[in-house]
Amino acid sequence: MLVTYTDFGLTGPYTGQLEAVLRQLAPGVPVVHLQADAPAFNPRAAGCLLKSLVTPFAPGSVLVCVVDPGVGTARDPIWVHAHGRIFVGPDNGLLAAVTRDDPDAQVHRILWRPPQLSNSFHGRDLFAPVAAALAKGEAVASECVTPERLCGADWPAELSEVIYVDVYGNLVTGLPAQAVPSESVLNLGGWSIAHRRVFGEAVPGEPFWYANSMGLVEVAVPQGNAADLLKVGMGAVIEGIGSEGRGGAA
Amino acid sequence: MLVTYTDFGLTGPYTGQLEAVLRQLAPGVPVVHLQADAPAFNPRAAGCLLKSLVTPFAPGSVLVCVVDPGVGTARDPIWVHAHGRIFVGPDNGLLAAVTRDDPDAQVHRILWRPPQLSNSFHGRDLFAPVAAALAKGEAVASECVTPERLCGADWPAELSEVIYVDVYGNLVTGLPAQAVPSESVLNLGGWSIAHRRVFGEAVPGEPFWYANSMGLVEVAVPQGNAADLLKVGMGAVIEGIGSEGRGGAA
Amino acid sequence: MLVTYTDFGLTGPYTGQLEAVLRQLAPGVPVVHLQADAPAFNPRAAGCLLKSLVTPFAPGSVLVCVVDPGVGTARDPIWVHAHGRIFVGPDNGLLAAVTRDDPDAQVHRILWRPPQLSNSFHGRDLFAPVAAALAKGEAVASECVTPERLCGADWPAELSEVIYVDVYGNLVTGLPAQAVPSESVLNLGGWSIAHRRVFGEAVPGEPFWYANSMGLVEVAVPQGNAADLLKVGMGAVIEGIGSEGRGGAA
Repeated sequence: MLVTYTDFGLTGPYTGQLEAVLRQLAPGVPVVHLQADAPAFNPRAAGCLLKSLVTPFAPGSVLVCVVDPGVGTARDPIWVHAHGRIFVGPDNGLLAAVTRDDPDAQVHRILWRPPQLSNSFHGRDLFAPVAAALAKGEAVASECVTPERLCGADWPAELSEVIYVDVYGNLVTGLPAQAVPSESVLNLGGWSIAHRRVFGEAVPGEPFWYANSMGLVEVAVPQGNAADLLKVGMGAVIEGIGSEGRGGAA
Repeated sequence: MLVTYTDFGLTGPYTGQLEAVLRQLAPGVPVVHLQADAPAFNPRAAGCLLKSLVTPFAPGSVLVCVVDPGVGTARDPIWVHAHGRIFVGPDNGLLAAVTRDDPDAQVHRILWRPPQLSNSFHGRDLFAPVAAALAKGEAVASECVTPERLCGADWPAELSEVIYVDVYGNLVTGLPAQAVPSESVLNLGGWSIAHRRVFGEAVPGEPFWYANSMGLVEVAVPQGNAADLLKVGMGAVIEGIGSEGRGGAA
Repeated sequence: MLVTYTDFGLTGPYTGQLEAVLRQLAPGVPVVHLQADAPAFNPRAAGCLLKSLVTPFAPGSVLVCVVDPGVGTARDPIWVHAHGRIFVGPDNGLLAAVTRDDPDAQVHRILWRPPQLSNSFHGRDLFAPVAAALAKGEAVASECVTPERLCGADWPAELSEVIYVDVYGNLVTGLPAQAVPSESVLNLGGWSIAHRRVFGEAVPGEPFWYANSMGLVEVAVPQGNAADLLKVGMGAVIEGIGSEGRGGAA
């Protein structure tokens, strides 16, 4: 399976052109669009989110990952074999989190270049052909590099901040939920936020946090919009994690 | 064919993860995304709209239907065989309209549970695997229930209100167009609205109603936005249906 | 490959219903959604943009093109064979640009009509079945017309104006980049705009123009929004093209 993960946005011809290249070069391989609104221009948040989204894709899947504000400049194109999947994208930190998490990860700098390479759409012109070739089991001219040399190799494994705001205003953080006991109270945007298991058990209009379907800590408001109520967005930092008994506005 | 009908919104990784599960469990079966902006948190409107959208999908299609504000609470997962198609989703009224419409409909409570079930994403973890199995003709542990016990079984067959507002501000109602003679004048938002066959025959800037491509009564404004002009939205009730000769603002 | 290019918008059931028809009538043929936000109600801009998007689709591809404000009125449905691809859509100028560009283009008026034809959704009811048949190599009842009789045949080949505004506020023009020397300065919205090769070489906050991945002149602002900064949108005309040395606000 070929999978796209980009910040191209939902509109415009970009995802469609990328898919055309994938389908034509790897006929018969299914193409799934995982996300076209990955954190834009933000390889660190986008890489942290990507790591949490991989599980539903079977081993052997090839993910084309493009959050690439430096497209057309000196950053290298790479592909990474980690967790049994292959990730293709720019060496700007986007693939650091999926690599760091697997001690057996292999990192490859892509040496192949297409005959026609636009300055602004390497997703279509370079990453998609490489992904299609790898999905078919074909070799791509590359050289191994040590994972430690990857851009972002020294970034923290967890991001104690908001890394994605969804369409309903839910605030996805870069904190693995299994690291946060359910009796914990989060401080975010001046609020103290207690845990609830599901939306249906939370109080309408009051923020709560829960382990979301990606395994991350997420803050939401039943029948409301957490981003609006808490007045926080991308990059907002969790100021503290305390213990139960202090829910509500601080 | 597998079909998704959800209120997941267009952004985020939700539809992509659901599609990944479908494609991996039912390889070779096409997956079509019918709609990701079904009326959110509103099983009654979403179910009424769904009923009007089924015809283009050939008999044998399996539709994964997820408008599920109570996810993670006590409502049952069900699948319904109606109109030659299979519908999989929560028993919260979403599937009541497609069931009510077919006297031979069969309703099944799903007993199967996946090894891993998140609290907030039963679309990916439960409904998608069930739909994939049914699309392959495999059995799913279930028990029959009588259609009368379905949540929403007693809801009205027609909704004389706005059940969907499209991207251009057109107001889709839950009224079957064949039940409304074309000489009728609708009262909505203080306007008296006459029938026109097509946009090209209506007056720019003036609201009209027509039988839309789903077979429902829809109110639109040529080169304008009906939701803005009439100042009405989801749930706005049609106050009356009269006879011709009273078009324009009331 | 079957390709959709429409102004249906991203929401609603329209693209999904169209895809269902394509997949059911042409099983096994991949379907790619190129764009659902083609310039709305604007066949001239949409046709100019379409011409620049065709290259990544292999010869033999069949594109269903629907920007059709006159749906349900007298305009003819047509299909065009040009550049080795087939384009199906309304004769309202949308297919004029792809036709004009190929001296061997063949234009066909579609005589076939479906048993059920809605007044407002010819994409699903007429264009999709025709495209599916052509993708399978089947004949469709049609008659040849000379390209000169096509609506829009006399429109200019280049549009010196904004024909698309993307999600980041980038301004795509209808000017082929190869016709504009890189030392040129564009006048747009009162600004004099110089060329930069890529985003990474431009100054954050300052507009620049570049040859985009479609081969068109595009105006953008690194880490900013060109549409907002220049206060221009769809249809804004490039007031002049001069020579270097006059960048910045005019």
